[in-house]
Amino acid sequence: MTPAASLVFTTLLSHGPLTRAEVARRTSLSAAAVTKAVRPLMELGYLVEGVDEDAPPAVGRPANLVWVDGGRALFIGLKVTGDEIIAVLADLCCRIRMSRHVHLTGREPEVVLPAITALVQELLTEAVGFGVRVRGLGIAISGDVDRAEGVVRYSPFLEWRDVPLAELTAAATGLPVTVDNDVRALTVAEHWFGAGVGLSHFALVTVGAGIGCGLVVHGRVVSGAHGVAGEIGHLSLDPLGPPCHCGNRGCVEAIAADPAIVRAVRAATGKQVTDTAEALDLAHREDPGARAVYARAGEAIGRAIGSLVNLLGPERVIISGEGLAAYDLFAEGIRDAFAASAFGTAARCDVVIRPLPFEEWARGAAATAIQSFMGSDTYEEQSMTLHSRGP
Amino acid sequence: MTPAASLVFTTLLSHGPLTRAEVARRTSLSAAAVTKAVRPLMELGYLVEGVDEDAPPAVGRPANLVWVDGGRALFIGLKVTGDEIIAVLADLCCRIRMSRHVHLTGREPEVVLPAITALVQELLTEAVGFGVRVRGLGIAISGDVDRAEGVVRYSPFLEWRDVPLAELTAAATGLPVTVDNDVRALTVAEHWFGAGVGLSHFALVTVGAGIGCGLVVHGRVVSGAHGVAGEIGHLSLDPLGPPCHCGNRGCVEAIAADPAIVRAVRAATGKQVTDTAEALDLAHREDPGARAVYARAGEAIGRAIGSLVNLLGPERVIISGEGLAAYDLFAEGIRDAFAASAFGTAARCDVVIRPLPFEEWARGAAATAIQSFMGSDTYEEQSMTLHSRGP
Repeated sequence: MTPAASLVFTTLLSHGPLTRAEVARRTSLSAAAVTKAVRPLMELGYLVEGVDEDAPPAVGRPANLVWVDGGRALFIGLKVTGDEIIAVLADLCCRIRMSRHVHLTGREPEVVLPAITALVQELLTEAVGFGVRVRGLGIAISGDVDRAEGVVRYSPFLEWRDVPLAELTAAATGLPVTVDNDVRALTVAEHWFGAGVGLSHFALVTVGAGIGCGLVVHGRVVSGAHGVAGEIGHLSLDPLGPPCHCGNRGCVEAIAADPAIVRAVRAATGKQVTDTAEALDLAHREDPGARAVYARAGEAIGRAIGSLVNLLGPERVIISGEGLAAYDLFAEGIRDAFAASAFGTAARCDVVIRPLPFEEWARGAAATAIQSFMGSDTYEEQSMTLHSRGP
Repeated sequence: MTPAASLVFTTLLSHGPLTRAEVARRTSLSAAAVTKAVRPLMELGYLVEGVDEDAPPAVGRPANLVWVDGGRALFIGLKVTGDEIIAVLADLCCRIRMSRHVHLTGREPEVVLPAITALVQELLTEAVGFGVRVRGLGIAISGDVDRAEGVVRYSPFLEWRDVPLAELTAAATGLPVTVDNDVRALTVAEHWFGAGVGLSHFALVTVGAGIGCGLVVHGRVVSGAHGVAGEIGHLSLDPLGPPCHCGNRGCVEAIAADPAIVRAVRAATGKQVTDTAEALDLAHREDPGARAVYARAGEAIGRAIGSLVNLLGPERVIISGEGLAAYDLFAEGIRDAFAASAFGTAARCDVVIRPLPFEEWARGAAATAIQSFMGSDTYEEQSMTLHSRGP
């Protein structure tokens, strides 16, 4: 697919149905270029054109609209956490048609890979009922993931190093596989369908088992020259702070991620708290030690967002992740620390809270599979060359 | 000028002379699009095409090359510091034809604006000798600068707030004026002609009176949705660190910028050090207190670069600025702290040192004036729309 065709496709995914004229306006392509881009996609059945039946009666001929025919292809998206795999079957519009959770009995590739294969087989069987082929599999996983190579270089939660996940799962399932960092995958979904639609510059900060960040700059997700980007969790805020698994001290993740909070609540209260639910419960029952831990975590997140905003000046920061369950305890710390650390007009950045269940992360994985299928990831590469003036 | 024409022009600025085929390859434009882009620029005389006289004899017809005719237009670039204005007269290829320094007797707009006007008049007079018109003025100034509006929102060193500098200097000189943050202007020059040529993702970190940062992501300079971006100087590294003029504690700028170093050397040695030259001299004479201050500054810079690299994953970080005079004292701290804080493969980022005199910053200002003249800043806006799929 040409860059223009990918662009037209994703524009229609986010904003369709649209008239061809509106597609041209939103993409800055000429009418002729839109026509050229639309034709093969219509021939393949991925786009359809017709009159909007719901539109109020117009004077003269009603305008033809173009939209993505979601039912023409299916994709599977998986989010792998330390405890479970969340899977969705999504259509070409990335609408979730079905979802599944399976518990993981271990974190080693020897346990996780067969679980992935079984789950994919189950969804492939279900997909038969839709009468459409599954065209790709997307897997979202936390850590340092090289999407181009399909390799999980390092995932701290799973304790994986250099696992060629795309190759292994492609061999086991027969599907084309796209592997990406989980927060980047969720960022693609937010950019196409969520709180990032229409924005050229935004950040998604996720709070939970780890502290992650997806960045969209100049309209595209930042991947990092060597696969690492968005590691806001390892901003070091305090040289005397708690030790982090990365080897440094005072990282945001060592203060505000779930395991850090559980440890700190235990230390502050002397109680044998074993998980975040118990820690949260203590804080909600007004235990001052537990509340102080959450306040400190909120402050760390707010300072990290301030640093991010000072560096990149995004239009919006979206805070999400399973850690939002404690948002009432974080909120004041985040707000105050962000306000104190944002420099000048950077403070105008819109900071929003957005709970997104794990299905939404799996949907992000499906979105990366749609990107690969429609060649819009290739498009990003080409477009990068277009702008870089480089060899 | 069309986006394609701007792209062809900047490609030829960085890499020319090139054959049309090579321009097409580097820009990902079709041969027809290159021809269409080149024609009006040739008619205006900004591009010329001819046979490369220096090329070795070729078999068959020698290839025609296209290049920018630098002599067809002149631009003035100014870098305003707290103490002086550095001005260059540059041609369309952004080659420096002449430079001037003037000392400033004060920092108020009432002192600086007449000094700018006088300096521009002097260069306009000199330009007459070249027989070509001066087509634009670029002014580079530190702080929060809104290029689109031409307003210096806040410059801590000059203590300016909301000065409509573009409007005032355009009225005084009769030239089209582009005002930009000084580090962003230098980043444009590095991207076109310096250590950033051919890179889609790099950062320029400047060390001196302040700590600044220019970012190129997806091939373009990041400006920030509200004008603030690259404020690496206000990454807060230590909640117990020295107070910063921004109101926080432990900012990189409060540890590693010139005034912070002078203050810390005074405190550490008890000696009445008044400027960086004296502080540097003490450290070079092996004073342990002074050396410890520089080591701490180097560590702060290295940690900040680590954070930046973890967030954005650039291919290269270029360290520059007048503070490089102390680089021998910084180097170890920067290297060690960067290595300790870079996460995973992010550590592969190429960190380079590059001394750039103030003339180079003024050249960056001239480059922003060339961008405005050739419409390549407008191009960035259009292209942003192209990628953002937004209204």
